Amino acid sequence: MNALLTDLYELTMAAGYFAAGKQDEIGTFELTIRRLPRNRDFVLTAGLHRALDYLLNLRFEADEIEFLKSLPNLRNAPPGFWDYLADFRFRGDVFAVPEGTVIYEGQPVLNIRAPLIEGQLPETYLLSALTFETLVASKAARIVHAAQGRYVVEFGTRRAHTPEAGILGARASYIGGCAGTSNTLAGYRYGIPVMGTAAHSWIMAFGNETDAFRQLQQLLGDRTIQLLDTYDVLEGARKVAELGKPLWGVRLDSGDFVETSRQVRRILDDAGLQHAKIMASGDLDEVKIADLVAAGAPIDSFGVGTELAVSGDAPSMGAIYKLVEIEQDGQTRATAKSSPEKQTLPGAKQLFRFPDYDILALHDECAPGSEALLKPYIINGNLVTELPSAEAIRERARAGLERWPAKDRHTEISYELEQLTERTHADLVR
Amino acid sequence: MNALLTDLYELTMAAGYFAAGKQDEIGTFELTIRRLPRNRDFVLTAGLHRALDYLLNLRFEADEIEFLKSLPNLRNAPPGFWDYLADFRFRGDVFAVPEGTVIYEGQPVLNIRAPLIEGQLPETYLLSALTFETLVASKAARIVHAAQGRYVVEFGTRRAHTPEAGILGARASYIGGCAGTSNTLAGYRYGIPVMGTAAHSWIMAFGNETDAFRQLQQLLGDRTIQLLDTYDVLEGARKVAELGKPLWGVRLDSGDFVETSRQVRRILDDAGLQHAKIMASGDLDEVKIADLVAAGAPIDSFGVGTELAVSGDAPSMGAIYKLVEIEQDGQTRATAKSSPEKQTLPGAKQLFRFPDYDILALHDECAPGSEALLKPYIINGNLVTELPSAEAIRERARAGLERWPAKDRHTEISYELEQLTERTHADLVR
Repeated sequence: MNALLTDLYELTMAAGYFAAGKQDEIGTFELTIRRLPRNRDFVLTAGLHRALDYLLNLRFEADEIEFLKSLPNLRNAPPGFWDYLADFRFRGDVFAVPEGTVIYEGQPVLNIRAPLIEGQLPETYLLSALTFETLVASKAARIVHAAQGRYVVEFGTRRAHTPEAGILGARASYIGGCAGTSNTLAGYRYGIPVMGTAAHSWIMAFGNETDAFRQLQQLLGDRTIQLLDTYDVLEGARKVAELGKPLWGVRLDSGDFVETSRQVRRILDDAGLQHAKIMASGDLDEVKIADLVAAGAPIDSFGVGTELAVSGDAPSMGAIYKLVEIEQDGQTRATAKSSPEKQTLPGAKQLFRFPDYDILALHDECAPGSEALLKPYIINGNLVTELPSAEAIRERARAGLERWPAKDRHTEISYELEQLTERTHADLVR
Repeated sequence: MNALLTDLYELTMAAGYFAAGKQDEIGTFELTIRRLPRNRDFVLTAGLHRALDYLLNLRFEADEIEFLKSLPNLRNAPPGFWDYLADFRFRGDVFAVPEGTVIYEGQPVLNIRAPLIEGQLPETYLLSALTFETLVASKAARIVHAAQGRYVVEFGTRRAHTPEAGILGARASYIGGCAGTSNTLAGYRYGIPVMGTAAHSWIMAFGNETDAFRQLQQLLGDRTIQLLDTYDVLEGARKVAELGKPLWGVRLDSGDFVETSRQVRRILDDAGLQHAKIMASGDLDEVKIADLVAAGAPIDSFGVGTELAVSGDAPSMGAIYKLVEIEQDGQTRATAKSSPEKQTLPGAKQLFRFPDYDILALHDECAPGSEALLKPYIINGNLVTELPSAEAIRERARAGLERWPAKDRHTEISYELEQLTERTHADLVR
């Protein structure tokens, strides 16, 4: 795991903490969804698997340390700092909300309690790893909800922000409820159902459309999905109807889906292919899918790429990673920002979920009858929980999403946390 | 390089081409920017380095082939196909527009001429690799333009779609004109200037703000940038002024930047710190930066994260990868899609750039006095061009961007290409 994959300021702060003799002070850092993206009432958490993998394997190689020594901003780092980095391991504790959990605005999703430098360095990586997959899982949940039981397949790798992000986007989409993905490696790596038949180039590579359809049928049998819109969609449908079975169905990739799907349905039905399915793909999102469903278009399945892969209407999210508590000279001091509009809540916390509301409280409070959502994953640098499969996470998400949309849900702040917040901000003003 | 990092349909088509005995037919595939994203008059190309690396290293490992054999959609693949995959290498030709080139709507950026399967398989990876970096480089160019000579530093890894995408986003931002990045690994890997000093947690980790400022000054000397808005920004500025030199400057990360930057400027000037710079960061984009510049806010440098890392207003782009020509039985056949609104131009092409306009023509046409933008990178599977440094690509981009904005620029279609298009679509109708 490449320890240089972080913002330089994490490393200059690390050198500074070391120079100030603060490397043994214990900090608690909190990763919080400060603001939900527009168009979202909740998010569905995903990405923790990568965050944990990163923390468990964080090491500095000799060549990386040499590079750091060459940087002007680290010129005055104390010599002992380089030995410290060479021996660096993450030895702290991580509490986190499990993947596939519904989370609301202002809620924490991960806590790290560790020596100051060990808690500071991971900030950049953790924010990116957790928010990206969370955004995609949340978008998937909206799209799957709009499809009202029709299968949604994730097709987005070609639009993902790097092909590698496509693998993780496929996993997140599956967690959010998609039936499968086009990404072959996501299937191999995470056991997700992987789907795909043919593109327009397949049709064009043959001298005529019927030959292309026939060849695909020979390869795929009753899993055949014929792509209709390379030349003329209704012509295409008639050719498919003439070839008959075996056939799973057809795919429409352009045009007016309401009108076209009806015409194609009629052509298939007239040929005795009542069981053949119609799939639609091409610039779809939850709004367009809801419209198609409402219009009664005879579409059985949706392929969604672009908008899902990049969470198109909300490609970023205001997650923050803040120091909330520090243990110095045997004393624990709560910390917070007080700049306008960016005030933070101090103290190490727990998030308690009751059926109808949540309570954000201090970590050592109790709330009988609730689920404590921040669960232990790493203690003293060791993984203490077996991580669930993508399948199991998807099931947790499904159960949580049954409550959706939960617009009237609210998060209470516990009395103890309220008191600590008042005291901390009063201390800051003083 | 993981060959499974592609859509399954590329692999089912590959099996189908093999089953149909088409594996030795030569296809020409073209990657084209079909539609520019909203808010864009042009894009700045980036990402080719990864596309080439992928093609040069594309291999199937034995365990990957075993996985493919287990997939229902490949159950009927002919036995010879598995041997074919085990020996698979990309042995085709790649012509592409160099990174750092200004490209307009409808223009091709990459051509592959290769045996059909070798040209088909890379579609998914190439689309993602090229469009992502192109989107970020293009966004960077807009932001840097808005800053009118003030330095822009890329801070976006924490918002990137995976931390690894952050490395490539940093490179693309640098190509687009940013002065540097916060991403340490991008500095190591691509020689990009890497920048960063301290976050709010640094301030909070000390018992009081002045101690935190003093410790940072000791570490960074005249490279010190003090972050002012942890508690009260003007209080912070007064403390920094009191400490005096050494100091590079201060950073504002929230609040009304116009008003605050003026107040902070006054505090610094009154303390004799006229040379101290003011940097602003926090949810900035090209529109907000243009407003700050127009308002005359005394800001010397901008840090831009979220909006740059995900190209926030345009996180995806309508790039397509299409078969444009196929050589079968000694004959070359031009191919095109004819579905409404998605018609494509057939034939292997070249893009000629003249000072005031471009000509899209067939690949064997000539256009004296122009630059032929699609240049050879891979011939018969071998790299034939030394790839330039990020620095050199940035310089090419800078030269090209001097013409920006070029709203009245147009792309002509050559007579030969027009004729071929008419003939091809007439054949399709027939």
